[in-house]
Amino acid sequence: MEGRDSQAIAELARLQRSAGATYIDVNAGMFFDDEAEILAWLVRTVQGAVDAPVAIDSPNPAAIKAALEAVESGKPTGTPAGTPTGTPTGTPAKKPIINSITDEKKRFDAVLPLVLEHGAGVVALCMDDAGMPETVADRVAIADRLFAKLTGEGVSPGDIYFDPMVRPVGTGSHYGVVAIETIREVKRRHPDAHIMCGLSNISFGIPARKLMNQAFLVAAMAAGMDGAILDPLDKKLMAILYAAEALLGIDDFCMGYISKFREGALDA
Amino acid sequence: MEGRDSQAIAELARLQRSAGATYIDVNAGMFFDDEAEILAWLVRTVQGAVDAPVAIDSPNPAAIKAALEAVESGKPTGTPAGTPTGTPTGTPAKKPIINSITDEKKRFDAVLPLVLEHGAGVVALCMDDAGMPETVADRVAIADRLFAKLTGEGVSPGDIYFDPMVRPVGTGSHYGVVAIETIREVKRRHPDAHIMCGLSNISFGIPARKLMNQAFLVAAMAAGMDGAILDPLDKKLMAILYAAEALLGIDDFCMGYISKFREGALDA
Repeated sequence: MEGRDSQAIAELARLQRSAGATYIDVNAGMFFDDEAEILAWLVRTVQGAVDAPVAIDSPNPAAIKAALEAVESGKPTGTPAGTPTGTPTGTPAKKPIINSITDEKKRFDAVLPLVLEHGAGVVALCMDDAGMPETVADRVAIADRLFAKLTGEGVSPGDIYFDPMVRPVGTGSHYGVVAIETIREVKRRHPDAHIMCGLSNISFGIPARKLMNQAFLVAAMAAGMDGAILDPLDKKLMAILYAAEALLGIDDFCMGYISKFREGALDA
Repeated sequence: MEGRDSQAIAELARLQRSAGATYIDVNAGMFFDDEAEILAWLVRTVQGAVDAPVAIDSPNPAAIKAALEAVESGKPTGTPAGTPTGTPTGTPAKKPIINSITDEKKRFDAVLPLVLEHGAGVVALCMDDAGMPETVADRVAIADRLFAKLTGEGVSPGDIYFDPMVRPVGTGSHYGVVAIETIREVKRRHPDAHIMCGLSNISFGIPARKLMNQAFLVAAMAAGMDGAILDPLDKKLMAILYAAEALLGIDDFCMGYISKFREGALDA
């Protein structure tokens, strides 16, 4: 990103899309001074390379706004040139996701107009001005408030992606259960909304992180999570994701699983 | 078993115990005519090799009886000779588990006296004379009846191991969810009882079975399962089991996970 290497970014986006990503996460948070400009460049680069929409990963309303404007200006008019054969197409959602809004007053008020103006999906983090909630009940209460406020402003439930705020299990033995039970309860109360998270947050600070991420992915999916920020180029992670889909009945008679097996995607 | 190779059986039992098995499953079901005799020999052989109790895996009351008598006659008086250094000891349950009783009248009446006479643990399969139940509600109703009948006869809740009757997800896309939700509901209603299953039943008839078994293990543990018949020599399966324990808060601050990492047990 620092050297504006469009080819490397485009290639990575293509690989991620081919590996099954339905959105491409764009994040320029490490550039404190020119996040907005670099994020907009990222969006243009990714959109020029793949047919998947972007997930705009920033807490900064100015950067989100610049990224959304880049989405608008770069709307593809067909299959982008250079799309490799075999790129999954399916029926991906066409609109970007803003990641994220919270129930912090200042952030809510700054991000909401961007959601409404651009008709974007929005990740709703279960936190508010009291900070990071400790319990499942506190998280669920924030999710309820955010759901009421967002749908009250006209956001469709299906455009809301709740993030339970995953804390590392190495810093508190209960944080895995807190995340899983938050997912289950939020999904129960808001079945038309989505649930997602940054998967690897669970394993921060412990060894064998990939293994813990795999276990958490399965448990979170079983509790109702239907999205995650993850590395689709991690074959082992994707293999267990396909297994979880078949296990949870998302994959009729395991036909997707069996076809992934035939492609060699379950060998990892 | 056919050649009565005690050394091979003893070595396998030692390997399984060293790999973390808390019970050694003994099953001679393939010998239709002399199951009872071979099962009793298996029990004597395993008990002579390791300090873990056996799980007597048979639907046949005569074979279960012979195996229980072998347990009684072979009660170890100390650490068995030949126990390798490093064999986990901890505080394993000393009594055998009978696998299994059901709510089929004939089987219940034949197995119950064995449970009571030997003070054994007992696997309670969620099935009755109507056959294999189809729904979660049917399974839970059978579990409730078995719990009432067994505790009414004096069996302690902690000696009951419910088996949700796992059916292969390849034969019905809903069977994974049925198993997981049965586990969750039975555990909610009977928190002092255990939940276990034959893990690999989930993956019968599909490819990449080990991967599916891994996914199911995590989802079932997250729902409350605390036991499984599985191959403890499968390093990858055990690795994800340790990850699930840490994820679910059974492993304080991931210390067990970190120590397994240091032993190289998470490399699979």
